[in-house]
Amino acid sequence: MRRIRIRIAYDGTNYCGFQLQPEVPTIEGELNKALSLLTREDIHIIGASRTDSGVHALGNVAVFDTNSSIPAERFPLAAVPYLPADIRITEGREVSCDWHPRKQECIKTYEYLISCGMTENPMTRLYASFYKKEPDIEKMRRAAEYLIGEHDFTSFANPSSEIISEGKSAVRKIYSVEIKKESDEIKIRITGNGFLYNMVRIITGTLIKVGSSSLNEAHVKEVLEARDRTKAGPTAEARGLRLVEIRYTEEL
Amino acid sequence: MRRIRIRIAYDGTNYCGFQLQPEVPTIEGELNKALSLLTREDIHIIGASRTDSGVHALGNVAVFDTNSSIPAERFPLAAVPYLPADIRITEGREVSCDWHPRKQECIKTYEYLISCGMTENPMTRLYASFYKKEPDIEKMRRAAEYLIGEHDFTSFANPSSEIISEGKSAVRKIYSVEIKKESDEIKIRITGNGFLYNMVRIITGTLIKVGSSSLNEAHVKEVLEARDRTKAGPTAEARGLRLVEIRYTEEL
Repeated sequence: MRRIRIRIAYDGTNYCGFQLQPEVPTIEGELNKALSLLTREDIHIIGASRTDSGVHALGNVAVFDTNSSIPAERFPLAAVPYLPADIRITEGREVSCDWHPRKQECIKTYEYLISCGMTENPMTRLYASFYKKEPDIEKMRRAAEYLIGEHDFTSFANPSSEIISEGKSAVRKIYSVEIKKESDEIKIRITGNGFLYNMVRIITGTLIKVGSSSLNEAHVKEVLEARDRTKAGPTAEARGLRLVEIRYTEEL
Repeated sequence: MRRIRIRIAYDGTNYCGFQLQPEVPTIEGELNKALSLLTREDIHIIGASRTDSGVHALGNVAVFDTNSSIPAERFPLAAVPYLPADIRITEGREVSCDWHPRKQECIKTYEYLISCGMTENPMTRLYASFYKKEPDIEKMRRAAEYLIGEHDFTSFANPSSEIISEGKSAVRKIYSVEIKKESDEIKIRITGNGFLYNMVRIITGTLIKVGSSSLNEAHVKEVLEARDRTKAGPTAEARGLRLVEIRYTEEL
């Protein structure tokens, strides 16, 4: 038995998230189906990041165990005929049989895209969220400074998540928040050692609130210290979010 | 009666092209329906560029006549509730009643997007065409030089088009062909005073043939001079093409 680690890219528009659920299309479900057909085994992948319904990924990671003789690096091409066009395996390599994608130190990068204008651009509607009024990115950048470093991010997590409801540590470290503008699009790129449930979307919703002047930038520090979800801004829409990459610290 | 000129953006994925056809979804059909519902009149738009099935636009142009009192610049927002999410009016202004979008001198800009890699990126699959082997853009740039200026583009036109089949002039002027590479994506941006049916897609197919070394770059001059469609490369897929803008010379 070998353990294969794959990188996965997907357009999340038509899926009810990564995690397997009965009766609805999920990324995990499609990958299990495709890899089982390909290997003629009963494959169950273990995903690194269980992205939400409608969230996209360029570089999510998963592992699966197989007795198949297909070389690890052949899986991206071999799986193409079995996968829908909106999911692709982009890399395959063999790892040790106890390697688990959620039990390794890693650095995750997410991007959130915002499109602005009088009317929404039909060409970006599936991959960006739309705001008529362009937020002030200088204000957003100053507010984002308060989030850099190691903090308890309870205020920026969905309270229904296991970590929050079971009182586990909500301390995470954010390495950088870059905010760039290109024509009518704003891109927020966040890198950290881990993210709580909905954390990037709540951070984005809060930064947009600051950028639209309905929250003072200095209040972001107070929001963080309050450890109270109700103090932060709204959860920004799923469609604007994409998991860009997961880099495992052992390999850096 | 007033004549309103609108700019239009659309994702062409789900349409059988711009031009009205019975029984199938078209951009023109959706705009007629939306503007008729909005104005409570029977609106028939006249489009500037009748883009093909699957081709996108950021700045196509059309006009329509109306007795409605809606101010011209209000049409983009007023039409939103009547339009599908993949079509938007982005600008409205009043023009003289004899202004016709296909009878004015203009400069049109198209972009063609190509994505490259072992497997296709699911996030760009609707807006770029996919080639496993990355073409050599230096070769493509040198080949494109032969196309700049005023030429008879018969070799780069679909022979079934009216202009070719009726022996009308196929002379057009290309002002520039820019070819840029950004990560795994190549963008070809072509500006000219007019384009024959399928011309941008046949130019792209020919440039990709040069970039993949199956056509010598200097042969592009011979292809042009042959005035024979069979000498040029294949018609590149519709999904990679977008009409970026139409600028009317009288307004420059």
